[in-house]
Amino acid sequence: MPQFEAGTFDVIVVGAGHAGAEAALASARMGAKTLALTMNLDMIAFMPCNPSIGGPAKGIVVREIDALGGAMGRVIDKTHIQMRMLNTAKGPAVRALRAQADKVLYQQEMKRLMEDEENLALHQGVVEKLIVEDGTVKGLITQAGGIYRANSVVITTGTFLRGEIIIGDLRYSSGPNNQQPSIKLAEHLEELGFETVRFKTGTPPRVNSKSIDYSKTEIQPGDEEPRAFGFETTEFIMDQLPCWLTYTTAETHQIIDDNLHLSPMYSGMAKGTGPRYCPSIEDKIVRFADKPRHQIFLEPEGRNTSEVYVQGLSTSLPEHVQRKLIESIPGLEKADMMRAGYAIEYDAIVPTQLWPTLESKQIENLYTAGQINGTSGYEEAAGQGLMAGINAAAKVLGKEEVILSRSEAYIGVLIDDLVTKGTSEPYRLLTSRAEYRLLLRHDNADMRLTELGYKLGMIDEARYDRFIGKKQRIEEEIARLRKAMIKPTEETQQAIRDASGSELKDGIRGADLLKRPEMNYEMIEKLTPPETKLSEDIKEQVEIQVKYEGYIEKSLQQVDKLKKMENKKIPDHIDYHAISGIATEARGKLSEVRPLSIAQASRISGVNPADISILLVYIEQGRIAKVSV
Amino acid sequence: MPQFEAGTFDVIVVGAGHAGAEAALASARMGAKTLALTMNLDMIAFMPCNPSIGGPAKGIVVREIDALGGAMGRVIDKTHIQMRMLNTAKGPAVRALRAQADKVLYQQEMKRLMEDEENLALHQGVVEKLIVEDGTVKGLITQAGGIYRANSVVITTGTFLRGEIIIGDLRYSSGPNNQQPSIKLAEHLEELGFETVRFKTGTPPRVNSKSIDYSKTEIQPGDEEPRAFGFETTEFIMDQLPCWLTYTTAETHQIIDDNLHLSPMYSGMAKGTGPRYCPSIEDKIVRFADKPRHQIFLEPEGRNTSEVYVQGLSTSLPEHVQRKLIESIPGLEKADMMRAGYAIEYDAIVPTQLWPTLESKQIENLYTAGQINGTSGYEEAAGQGLMAGINAAAKVLGKEEVILSRSEAYIGVLIDDLVTKGTSEPYRLLTSRAEYRLLLRHDNADMRLTELGYKLGMIDEARYDRFIGKKQRIEEEIARLRKAMIKPTEETQQAIRDASGSELKDGIRGADLLKRPEMNYEMIEKLTPPETKLSEDIKEQVEIQVKYEGYIEKSLQQVDKLKKMENKKIPDHIDYHAISGIATEARGKLSEVRPLSIAQASRISGVNPADISILLVYIEQGRIAKVSV
Ligand SMILES: Cc1cc2nc3c(=O)[nH]c(=O)nc-3n(C[C@H](O)[C@H](O)[C@H](O)COP(=O)(O)OP(=O)(O)OC[C@H]3O[C@@H](n4cnc5c(N)ncnc54)[C@H](O)[C@@H]3O)c2cc1C
Ligand SMILES: Cc1cc2nc3c(=O)[nH]c(=O)nc-3n(C[C@H](O)[C@H](O)[C@H](O)COP(=O)(O)OP(=O)(O)OC[C@H]3O[C@@H](n4cnc5c(N)ncnc54)[C@H](O)[C@@H]3O)c2cc1C
Repeated sequence: MPQFEAGTFDVIVVGAGHAGAEAALASARMGAKTLALTMNLDMIAFMPCNPSIGGPAKGIVVREIDALGGAMGRVIDKTHIQMRMLNTAKGPAVRALRAQADKVLYQQEMKRLMEDEENLALHQGVVEKLIVEDGTVKGLITQAGGIYRANSVVITTGTFLRGEIIIGDLRYSSGPNNQQPSIKLAEHLEELGFETVRFKTGTPPRVNSKSIDYSKTEIQPGDEEPRAFGFETTEFIMDQLPCWLTYTTAETHQIIDDNLHLSPMYSGMAKGTGPRYCPSIEDKIVRFADKPRHQIFLEPEGRNTSEVYVQGLSTSLPEHVQRKLIESIPGLEKADMMRAGYAIEYDAIVPTQLWPTLESKQIENLYTAGQINGTSGYEEAAGQGLMAGINAAAKVLGKEEVILSRSEAYIGVLIDDLVTKGTSEPYRLLTSRAEYRLLLRHDNADMRLTELGYKLGMIDEARYDRFIGKKQRIEEEIARLRKAMIKPTEETQQAIRDASGSELKDGIRGADLLKRPEMNYEMIEKLTPPETKLSEDIKEQVEIQVKYEGYIEKSLQQVDKLKKMENKKIPDHIDYHAISGIATEARGKLSEVRPLSIAQASRISGVNPADISILLVYIEQGRIAKVSV
Repeated sequence: MPQFEAGTFDVIVVGAGHAGAEAALASARMGAKTLALTMNLDMIAFMPCNPSIGGPAKGIVVREIDALGGAMGRVIDKTHIQMRMLNTAKGPAVRALRAQADKVLYQQEMKRLMEDEENLALHQGVVEKLIVEDGTVKGLITQAGGIYRANSVVITTGTFLRGEIIIGDLRYSSGPNNQQPSIKLAEHLEELGFETVRFKTGTPPRVNSKSIDYSKTEIQPGDEEPRAFGFETTEFIMDQLPCWLTYTTAETHQIIDDNLHLSPMYSGMAKGTGPRYCPSIEDKIVRFADKPRHQIFLEPEGRNTSEVYVQGLSTSLPEHVQRKLIESIPGLEKADMMRAGYAIEYDAIVPTQLWPTLESKQIENLYTAGQINGTSGYEEAAGQGLMAGINAAAKVLGKEEVILSRSEAYIGVLIDDLVTKGTSEPYRLLTSRAEYRLLLRHDNADMRLTELGYKLGMIDEARYDRFIGKKQRIEEEIARLRKAMIKPTEETQQAIRDASGSELKDGIRGADLLKRPEMNYEMIEKLTPPETKLSEDIKEQVEIQVKYEGYIEKSLQQVDKLKKMENKKIPDHIDYHAISGIATEARGKLSEVRPLSIAQASRISGVNPADISILLVYIEQGRIAKVSV
């Protein structure tokens, strides 16, 4: 293949799925001359699996992306068919927004953002090789022979690396949904010395809406209250489509039992490791054998299509078994299966080979993000993409690198988990993974991250000013409530009785009254109104910050400790084998992960507090100087 | 691969491109239980090349499809970004409508029609084999092992059969736009004894709108007058996007000259035969060496994208040469090339292996339609798809087969050309291919075909009633004008003078005055108004039918002769080698094509009038009886 010079960029992003789109937009936004190079321009931000964005933990990631100036929130706000706040009855830490997407509109909108972004070129092309000189990436080479030069490269190739689709006994080389797989690039990454694992993920069948008997299912409408992921979204789609709930039956379970030997995961056909927290239906039935039924959500794939996603029925059983499964579910007895479910196996990179910036430890200026790093899920991909894009651009532009801590963002938890602990299965973000989940809320993502987004140049001044205004109004209102004295007038007592609280004996500060479990901001506001009426999002912040003050305080103290540990930096190139006293296993792990701080070191599994103490002493005594350099 | 019974249908259509979509919709509409089985449900009715529908001859095909109850016209009417009537200054025979499509919306709309159609199931699946018993197709087998049984099968796999993409020195196995190619099915068709040829077609690069300097180009707006392909369309998109016109330059031509050795078509890399009437830019520059410049139209690919199609620059030169070409064109000096152009080579079936119903001569109940039959173009594909779908369903339902004659429809010309003459290159419909083009007009497609559409069950009663009403009003108005006497009043003379005609000496019939070249219906209508005001389309028909009466009459006389020849049927299984007197070449050709009528026989190249006379005598003397059976 004759080669030719195809252009020089600051940053090149390979792939334009959920990770790639955010990476490219972020890098361009930061001011780096960026190229997004992807196999098929008609498949940008394609959703090969569930047509939905958000949900527990994931929804908060979307808010964080938005607060940092990313795209996912804005795009889904414009293209959803339904929006629902989950867990509204529970505490603010677990509230999460979830949207059903119009799959095609989502793609179109993301593509348009990329096309229109200044500093960003969007090209179709298949990347086969990287150009690496002296351990630093310098560009890449496409199938057509194009040599693209760049200071940084971000790879976001999802499930394409040596992708293989598996359905029953059928197994063939393919990207998701019968796209071309990426084989040459996979081989090349192996040659470059990347350690990879074989992972697997699956998708359920799709059925035709006209063949569903909805009368046997329960309707799941969207929220009537307008909501958005984007902090700047002002237009809300009020015309929503419902989803529908049904259940598996004893018959479904029997069919699976009878056909388990045909399942690639049990027959040994599939060797990749699947996601524990997003199991196939056959997995669920084997692992939770005594559960009589599982939820099945019927989710439209868009406004302009009759395809319906059968959530909960992810499977790689043979096609004829899938049909029987469908027919065994109330409402789907006559459902016409338009696409069969399938599993896809692919190469993922062992993520402990990455720095917390998502830069490769082996090859400088090379970043990877998304499913290639062993995660699963659009939001996980987008969050990583954003950070890889930011860091790739920062490095090129001579700015400081950006690492979100576990106390700042779910994205921080995600990336820290990956690079510190690695993952033995497709990693999925869960609320339980975040120690500081009371701080990492849906409602306060802007409070946590807008400042940073602005500093990075990801957020413009107008938006930043609005944010500062909002923050100030919140602080002022809290300060006011801390001072405002509410007297035990009859009006007050009546309001308290109405809320089934116990009457006041004395006057009480507004903030203290708000802390009572039965009270909310709306009630307090009536008793001691602010000078100017506040908007809903400000009221929400005031209420949460005041009500949960104690818990938040406690979390913040823990964060302080964490910060101290994080400030204890471990110099790079430290030779752990030279430190006597550290256990052998810990030495191995530390050498592999190369943690940047004592905090990160302490989270490595197999590294004990005793090892950490020795390491601390070693570093603080300054011995490091002799060892490193 | 273990197999399973996947269902039984009257008709199965393989592929859902432009041919497959029409075939499946038509078959279902006719009342046959139909399945459309296609590789990728996200790629239905995808336009791999120019985002436009219609134009000379092709536009009339779209009208014919609509008159027969097909989908293409309705779909483009709902999804275009621009609509233009071409050749309005010329006679009605060459007028043609052309629309720029919103590529993604077009796909969505066609998919939705298919999803919603009663009697039609739409499934994703890859067909690998046909089931053929005793020379009759009985169904097919998919990659996943599904055995689908059917009475008829229509194959519409476009450019996928052993597809290979070629750009410069690069050549790789692929369907259009990096989709998976169809290799197993191609091998299977070969095993079944189908004779195939290797054809090739190409597509130009796409550039980003934001990088075009439109000030150096000429704007090409859409028509202000609302127009539609569909006879039943009542809503018109008035918010249109313009296209832009620019030209190649001496520099463009120089670049091609300098790099011709790198072109796959000249280097010998590409072996397939390309379309003469849709040549690549390198072809144009070689073949028309003295033409100083060629037109380049910049066509947006949709409302919601910045991708712009560079019409006129189809090429398979290497990517770096393509970039130089683009930069040499005014307005595109800084254009960012988002996708490179490429050529695709593929297997096509030699179409003389088909009956004029598009049924295979080798395998009963098997039909093929679209690019697989050696044509190129969406409209050519759709026209064939419609007829194959109609005939496949008709056969199953025990209805009569449908063959459009050359005097009835461009679709008749297209199919007759294919099955009678074959094609040595990707066949494209041109106005010049139609002998009766004065009859095959844009304006009268409904007059020609609605009756048939209704009889087939493709058109419902309400629409048919509207058609009958329209037809009657036209006839009545023509009859009235033939009688109505216009007196040489001052008003009349003034109107004639205004139109620069010569004054009347005497009274004149309305129809005769309308025949004068300077007069039109609008003028006549003022002088002798009808009882009730007529709609625009009726006025247009009246005017054309009256004005061109003489020419139309002459054409109709020729058609009469043709019809007589068409009525002279040639019995099947005639042994041409047993007829003494027919020249050897003619014998071979006749045995290959197996024409159904003397008319068709006379159009076979290599068959002379003398051969036809002998054949006629032979058949009329009834000798045939002894030979056949
Ligand atoms: C079948 C299937 C089932 C899934 N099921 C689930 C699930 O149940 N739950 C869940 O949370 N997640 C699921 N996912 C995962 C989710 O789809 C992904 O996590 C998400 O799309 C990953 O985003 P990404 O950006 O990393 O990769 P992708 O969105 O896959 O994007 C990869 C991009 O890289 C491009 N590319 C690949 N190779 C090259 C190359 N050589 N050169 C140029 N471009 C290239 C591709 O064209 C594409 O644009 C599933 C995915 C699949 C495929
Ligand atoms: C690169 C390129 C350039 C072109 N340039 C021009 C041009 O300049 N001018 C012009 O007039 N025309 C051009 N065309 C032609 C035009 O695109 C086609 O004529 C038109 O799309 C053909 O329609 P079709 O329905 O026959 O095939 P397609 O639209 O290609 O549809 C084929 C269908 O079959 C499906 N399929 C294939 N194999 C299988 C299988 N084994 N099982 C199930 N489904 C299968 C595919 O998924 C697809 O849905 C070009 C086409 C290409 C690809």
